[in-house]
Amino acid sequence: MTGQVYLIPTVLQDDQQAFDALPLYILQAIKSCDIFFAENIKTTRRYFKKWWKEMVIDDYQWYAIHKLEDQLRKEFKDHLLAGKNIGIISEAGCPGIADPGAHLVEIAQQIGATVHPMVGPNSIILALMASGMNGQQFQFSGYLPIDSHERKKALQALEADSKKETVPRSLLRRLTAICNW
Amino acid sequence: MTGQVYLIPTVLQDDQQAFDALPLYILQAIKSCDIFFAENIKTTRRYFKKWWKEMVIDDYQWYAIHKLEDQLRKEFKDHLLAGKNIGIISEAGCPGIADPGAHLVEIAQQIGATVHPMVGPNSIILALMASGMNGQQFQFSGYLPIDSHERKKALQALEADSKKETVPRSLLRRLTAICNW
Repeated sequence: MTGQVYLIPTVLQDDQQAFDALPLYILQAIKSCDIFFAENIKTTRRYFKKWWKEMVIDDYQWYAIHKLEDQLRKEFKDHLLAGKNIGIISEAGCPGIADPGAHLVEIAQQIGATVHPMVGPNSIILALMASGMNGQQFQFSGYLPIDSHERKKALQALEADSKKETVPRSLLRRLTAICNW
Repeated sequence: MTGQVYLIPTVLQDDQQAFDALPLYILQAIKSCDIFFAENIKTTRRYFKKWWKEMVIDDYQWYAIHKLEDQLRKEFKDHLLAGKNIGIISEAGCPGIADPGAHLVEIAQQIGATVHPMVGPNSIILALMASGMNGQQFQFSGYLPIDSHERKKALQALEADSKKETVPRSLLRRLTAICNW
């Protein structure tokens, strides 16, 4: 039987307050996996140890997904077809949302593997909730360029674009762009 | 001192599996509130009783926010200014995201009250994570019209609009529109 994929959320800060914002079923998901594809293996190992002190880290197979390469995709697919359960973890928040992981999930969907997206912190949704702005329609425009000239150009393009729309939406665009920058 | 606002997430299904997807700090938030503004008071009371069996429901003040009226906004503001802590709960998912609540949060922001957006299930993010589609940029186009003729027109407009963009984004638009319809 094809393996299953767990999209495991994580936190930015490594303290108890941040942990209290995570649902307990994450522990069960970690325990259900044989292999992990992580954006940052080192911080993921530390994070898992907080969930499950007795976890023997080296009993699991680990892959870094910071750069998604053809070989990595092939191994991901082969493991799933061999019936292995795989966890995907990004550096913060929910894998696949403004973070790596989507390309692996795409492979899982292509071969019909069950994918479990898990509830966790997402800066876009939390910022929108707290803003009091219109959550009935919104757009996440992605990360802004690091180069200051390019960034200015991108902000001006968003600004011009937003003038075609209603005001709350345009404000939100800028908010989400800034929050995730 | 001005009261604080807790944006309390909830679940669609009332079973243990759904509850396991919620972070435990929700209980603390419920206990921190004096007053609740809920989309559906009846289901919210039942939901809170699952979190906190000993909760004396009638010790709290309850408001229905299905229709946000001027009087309701005024009372919300007055309670905050009087130092009361207020919880906002929608019928499913995260308050303010494709759900009522944003107008109340807007008032809280205007008077400088602390707003706590809480981690919880959000169908838009979960659908996007599980899809394997591009989560680096996306748009939530909102609920489609109930009337079948209007709905068809709205879908055609999304379709036409999506042709101006890259394919994964256009697919996602339709996906989120359908998921939340």
